[in-house]
This record gives sequence, C-alpha cells and structure tokens, in this order.
Amino acid sequence: MRVRFVIAYDGTEYCGWQVQPNGITVQEVLNRSLSDFFGQEISTIGASRTDAGVHALGNVAVADIDTRMPAEKIALAINQSLPDDIVIQATDEVPSDFHPRFSKSAKTYEYAIQNRQVPLPTLSRYTYFYHHNLDEERMRQGVAALIGEHDFTSFASIHSQTNSFVRTVYDIDIKRDEWDVVRMRIRGNGFLYNMVRIIAGTLIHVGSGLLEPEDVGRILMAKDREQAGPTAPASGLTLVGIEYD
Amino acid sequence: MRVRFVIAYDGTEYCGWQVQPNGITVQEVLNRSLSDFFGQEISTIGASRTDAGVHALGNVAVADIDTRMPAEKIALAINQSLPDDIVIQATDEVPSDFHPRFSKSAKTYEYAIQNRQVPLPTLSRYTYFYHHNLDEERMRQGVAALIGEHDFTSFASIHSQTNSFVRTVYDIDIKRDEWDVVRMRIRGNGFLYNMVRIIAGTLIHVGSGLLEPEDVGRILMAKDREQAGPTAPASGLTLVGIEYD
Repeated sequence: MRVRFVIAYDGTEYCGWQVQPNGITVQEVLNRSLSDFFGQEISTIGASRTDAGVHALGNVAVADIDTRMPAEKIALAINQSLPDDIVIQATDEVPSDFHPRFSKSAKTYEYAIQNRQVPLPTLSRYTYFYHHNLDEERMRQGVAALIGEHDFTSFASIHSQTNSFVRTVYDIDIKRDEWDVVRMRIRGNGFLYNMVRIIAGTLIHVGSGLLEPEDVGRILMAKDREQAGPTAPASGLTLVGIEYD
Repeated sequence: MRVRFVIAYDGTEYCGWQVQPNGITVQEVLNRSLSDFFGQEISTIGASRTDAGVHALGNVAVADIDTRMPAEKIALAINQSLPDDIVIQATDEVPSDFHPRFSKSAKTYEYAIQNRQVPLPTLSRYTYFYHHNLDEERMRQGVAALIGEHDFTSFASIHSQTNSFVRTVYDIDIKRDEWDVVRMRIRGNGFLYNMVRIIAGTLIHVGSGLLEPEDVGRILMAKDREQAGPTAPASGLTLVGIEYD
C-alpha cells in the first residue's frame, strides 16, 4: 500500500531533505528506518526538497510498503528508531496514484527574522539574526505586489530546474512578536527553488530602507534574479505544512 | 567599578548557572571570558542560580572590574569571546553596594509544556513534552490560590536552603499557542529552589485531571512538599527577566 507521512524535523544537522552523496539527509534517515523496520528496501518520495538547515513542521512524503500493519500505526512504530530531531507526526494510507509533489496542494512556509540589537541564544536555532531595525509596515506594503498568480523568475534561484516560473501566492502575513522576531508567513500553490528565502531577503531590504515598498512590484515585473534581494539564510525558514485538495 | 550584566543563555549544554566542581556552568564560562579580557581575576555574582538545563533570556549578574572602558561597551566586547549559547544582552554601571540577589526585585519565569500527541522537534529544546490533554481553564482556576504572599513550603524542594519560605507571587498567566504549547508565566518577588517547576508539575496534574483546581489551595496550606505534584523537567523552564526597583 501507499503510505503518506507527515514529517517534522529540526534541519540544523542535516544536508536538507533529499538523499545526496555528501552528507546525511532527512530522507536518507527516514528511508533507512523504514527499510530496517519492514525488512524491505523502502524509498520515500518527498513533497518539498527542503535545503540544508531548513526546518519542517509538516513536510509530506509517501512510500510503497508491503505490510499488514494499519497505516496509522506506522508513525509510532518508526518514531522509536528515528533520532529526536526527526519525528513523524502522522501516517495514513493514500491511493496508489497519490504523488506528494504532483498532487494539487497549498504549501505554507514561515521565515523568521530575529530583529534585535543583540541575539537571544534560545531563538537563534530557528531564526535569522538581523540587527538593523525593520519596519514591518513597509514590508507589508511591499509584499502586496506578490499576491496572486505571477511569473516569479526574479525570486527564483538561477539554479532552478523548472518548466514554468508561474506560481500563485495566496497570502503573506507579517507579524512582530514579543521578542522582536518578525515572522513572514507565506502560503501558495508551490514555490520555486529558494523563492521564499529570496522574498525574505528582498523584504529585509524593504524593511531596513534599502528598497522602497513599490520596488517589489518593479522587481517582480523585471523577471531578473539580479534585481531582487539576497537569499536569506536557511536557519530562518520553516516549512509549516502542506494541504492537499 | 561594579558592572551589571543582563545575560541570556540556552541552558541545554550547561550544568546550570553556578560554578561547581563537576561540569561546565554558565557562570564559569562568563568568569573566564571576563578574566581573560581584562587580565584580572573576575568573579561574577548571579541573581538567579538556574539549574542544569534551564534557559534564561535575562538573568542578572554583577562583577567588580578595574577598567576605564565604559560599562555599556563591555557587553559587545565580551560577546566576541563567548560561545553562541551565552549572549550578554546589556551591561551598565551600578552602585558598589548593588547586589543582584539581595536588592529588591521582581522575577519572571516561563514554564512551557508542549501538549501534543506527537512532539515537534523544533519545540523540544525549550519545552517539556507532555502528551495527555491539558485543560488550561482548570489550570487557571488552580493557580488562583497561589497569587499573593504565602508560605510556599509545599512548592519548594526539600533541599531548599532558606530562612523563610514566604514569597509573594504577583501573577500567573496561562496560554496555549498555535502549536499547542501551554505557557505558564509567573511573576513574583522571589522563588524558592525548584518552586516554579513544582508549581508547573502540580498544574500539569490539575490540567490532566489527576488533581482538582481546588486542591492547589489545600496543598499550599499543608506546607508539605509531598502533597504537591512532581518537579517538572528543566528544559521547559526559562528565566524571562528580573526587574529591579
């Protein structure tokens, strides 16, 4: 049967999601635990190939497993052998044609900026520390141009491998919390390689005054990665969750 | 001059604040950095001797330093040589009779309980994972009995070394956040050894139904540690800050 996994991880110690030759990845650890437990070679397919250092509360993966164990019980069984920084949140059975990347979905990411004079060490693992003052109101004005269906070439890594740079952003919410962490939460039908981190890097320039809010629309129209801000560091990014139709 | 330090730390890797023979402590690391930098033996006195694994956003310490450097500049200078998990937030000069423990102050602690079926790894470092469902409304009813000036013998470790078990709790606030972390924030004029963790452990029993809300007042009156709940684990506790008159 095809089993779907909702997986949370602290990405700090991993070279991202996707199996790769140099360095340990979340997918590799998960594949190994599953293969050991079921005594068969199991290879997962992930919805989001998060980069090194990026965190997840709810990435999604599937695997075909030959077992009589009810799909719902697999999470608890496999969590016993996973390290503490990877925890399966839930498992369920899905149709054999369900594909986590090609099925229609909405993804939510959060980029967290610790915007203080001096960092708080208990925040550093899951935020990007940026000490120049950010004006969230300017950032909110800036993101307005990104909502909707657009060609996001300007906000995609030049290493993107894709047929189309068109994506739809449903909404972007920006809030400052009690500890001066500015959190940008973005929801869309899909994101290009590094797109959330480039949007975050661009908004940091808007918030600090290096760019004007109205520049964001201009950058979008330019379809040129050079026009946008830098790719913000991985530690601030968390894949919050993925909803399927 | 006497310099006051406001210090934040991730307590995970330390055997608490206070210098001790077995294991590295936050105070020891700070003393060493200060002594190396100023070329003189410097020994800090801390306001709160937090336990192994407890975190701080704003513990306070003082040290007498023979220097012409403005007190305000010391934070930045010393942060260069401190590890990432200890960060001085601010330094200032205080009168030579200022003592961080004996000067009148209000302390704020937060105890964070990750109350979910399955833990989120990005929360685990700074919370205590407890999977039975907690009813915050019951917990709020329970804490009402603790507000005010009381003898807190029932909520102090039997290893407490103190002349008086009387303390004043100004307020206790309990909230559940988006990720089902139940946060108890408590403010008072001082806390006995393990007092916040024993209050948290007792409230967990109230929230889960093992105790009734009205039992908290009865436990307080009993002046007997045996009546209260267990000492909740250190990872959930953070010293938020200390305000001096």
